[in-house]
Amino acid sequence: MTDVSTPSLDLSQSTPEITRQICDIESVSGNEGALADAIEAAVSGLPHLEVIRIGHNVVARTRLGRAERVVIAGHIDTVPLNDNLPTRWEEIDGVDYLWGRGTVDMKSGVAVQLKLAVELTDPRVDITWMWYENEEVSSELNGLGILAAARPDLFEADFAILGEPSNSQIEGGCNGTIRIEVRTFGTRAHSARSWVGANAIHAAGPVLDVLSRYEAAQVEVDSLIYREGLNAVGISGGIAGNVIPDECMVHINYRFAPDKTADQAIAHLEQLFGAWDITVVDRAEGARPGLDAPLARAFAEAVGGTPKPKYGWTDVARFSALGVPAVNYGPGDPVKAHADDERVSVQQILDCEVGLRSWLQADGEARAVGAADGAGAEAGAGADADAGTVR
Amino acid sequence: MTDVSTPSLDLSQSTPEITRQICDIESVSGNEGALADAIEAAVSGLPHLEVIRIGHNVVARTRLGRAERVVIAGHIDTVPLNDNLPTRWEEIDGVDYLWGRGTVDMKSGVAVQLKLAVELTDPRVDITWMWYENEEVSSELNGLGILAAARPDLFEADFAILGEPSNSQIEGGCNGTIRIEVRTFGTRAHSARSWVGANAIHAAGPVLDVLSRYEAAQVEVDSLIYREGLNAVGISGGIAGNVIPDECMVHINYRFAPDKTADQAIAHLEQLFGAWDITVVDRAEGARPGLDAPLARAFAEAVGGTPKPKYGWTDVARFSALGVPAVNYGPGDPVKAHADDERVSVQQILDCEVGLRSWLQADGEARAVGAADGAGAEAGAGADADAGTVR
Repeated sequence: MTDVSTPSLDLSQSTPEITRQICDIESVSGNEGALADAIEAAVSGLPHLEVIRIGHNVVARTRLGRAERVVIAGHIDTVPLNDNLPTRWEEIDGVDYLWGRGTVDMKSGVAVQLKLAVELTDPRVDITWMWYENEEVSSELNGLGILAAARPDLFEADFAILGEPSNSQIEGGCNGTIRIEVRTFGTRAHSARSWVGANAIHAAGPVLDVLSRYEAAQVEVDSLIYREGLNAVGISGGIAGNVIPDECMVHINYRFAPDKTADQAIAHLEQLFGAWDITVVDRAEGARPGLDAPLARAFAEAVGGTPKPKYGWTDVARFSALGVPAVNYGPGDPVKAHADDERVSVQQILDCEVGLRSWLQADGEARAVGAADGAGAEAGAGADADAGTVR
Repeated sequence: MTDVSTPSLDLSQSTPEITRQICDIESVSGNEGALADAIEAAVSGLPHLEVIRIGHNVVARTRLGRAERVVIAGHIDTVPLNDNLPTRWEEIDGVDYLWGRGTVDMKSGVAVQLKLAVELTDPRVDITWMWYENEEVSSELNGLGILAAARPDLFEADFAILGEPSNSQIEGGCNGTIRIEVRTFGTRAHSARSWVGANAIHAAGPVLDVLSRYEAAQVEVDSLIYREGLNAVGISGGIAGNVIPDECMVHINYRFAPDKTADQAIAHLEQLFGAWDITVVDRAEGARPGLDAPLARAFAEAVGGTPKPKYGWTDVARFSALGVPAVNYGPGDPVKAHADDERVSVQQILDCEVGLRSWLQADGEARAVGAADGAGAEAGAGADADAGTVR
């Protein structure tokens, strides 16, 4: 007998509590069904939202006839567990955290989005909320890609915000990423008569020397400084303990600033490693920060702080490729994404909620939601003074 | 129902034919039972031989009260098959070969030994014939080691001949071999923020540079020149395509001349790779050629040709460690050992038989066996002129 009950979400709770609820519905990539069902149920039946479901992707949008439209998106899958569910509350050095898989990447961001989707019935811009599957796995499974292919009209927008972890600060654009395999070759022989062969592993030394000597650039794009990186992420070679190997492979990852296209980045790698056999095994364009778009500027002003560059590749690049300026804005320290001790600061969840809410709510609604805002601030203060209030 | 029949050997056939018979009894390491049974049966019941069986090891020895005793040994296992059984006769560029697994390493040598064990009823020295299991696998399974532990008295001898492939020329002693793992370390990080980590694969570049720059020595030992070799035989590192690796391992094989002990060879490696973490994973002493022993000199004179050094490690080192001078002498080109196209020259089998027989037979027997010798020579000539005579 299979369990046919659908876990339900209570979006009247605080955003840290909602984070906990959706983290405890395990949704490792490929297993997002139950959480997508719960999300769909929680946002359906509201007069201000049209809900569309494709696969395990849920879209909810307002159709208020506003002059501008913003897409706000978050993926609902996580990387595999490592004994880090269910979640638990933790206090470290006086800071309150929610610990567990998905708390940073990126269910706290999704929790804030869900809360606001339900509560902001009269926002200043039209909003298209998107919660999608399979971000953590190979690109062709990505839910945002599936939505874009099925319903390109849903991506017609003036600005996009992706809730990827960014310490509740705006991180603009993202670096691109290329992976190549560089191969060296030799001649197999018994190692007792090594002079008969040619050692492919020894021949890989100069490849590693290129990597060691390489000085990664820091590139300014639209006033943000993108830091690049060129690294071996794998190496393999060898047949047996008594055989001179005839092949060695160095797997290299190049993270390149969004001033370059992927083609230009590959050309750069071909210059560096032109002496060897190169295979491109992965490529993803970067995204320029898009902070010069009017809506982006307004958002940055409302949220405050100094926008930073995003180093990791995120789905903002998909929006960027569609001509929609996009930024990352979500709770959680990206360094803790995928970590076994993944945990999000409770305060950052509340900060993100306040930031998004204050910008999205219309003037009229600002007053109406003042109480909720106050509640959020109170919960935040409570989290500092007495973590029990958010538990 | 299991097959309980024991394949039987007909040792009245020519040595190339006997090679074919025993190659076609598959005996990959661990599966030597049927061949050991057949060998035991073929040499049992002869008045001049005492037969001892321990595991899948068969010892047959004369007890004629001669002043000197020689051990003549050969392993009966092979490396795994690769579609290279059953054997077949081949002619390439006018040379006749027996093709298939074990033809070189080393059932042709065993075939010659079996033929002579039965026919040399009155040799000039006492002979201890040893046919043993598990030479091609890990050292603790080695049949010669098992025999030495169970019956050290069987190893009391003045000289030993191992039938390992050496183109039917004497190859003295052997290089020793050491394998070490050299590890470099770093700090794991997401490759989008590589500057937070430290790349262990990049750190392995200088290890490979040491290997590339190393000039292997050629060392004279007892008038033979041993050529050394220092090589990476494996390299591995890397966690995922987006992670800076915190560990890289270079697997290194050092083949050292028998002027050094294994301890001295390890000290040399510690000098070369002292900057890194080193683990010794395998060590085997070399063996000095032992060609200055009186019996060895006499054997070399009888066989003719110029003795050469043995580069690969062989069980001669076991005899050497027991104080018994030992050489390699067997048909087949060692370069073809373990090769998928393993094949032995028919002429080399016959040459090896003539060489061993002429040295081992007493003067009186030389005449008596003249006819058999002539038959061997005829078969040899026949193999050149008409391969049919040995098929």
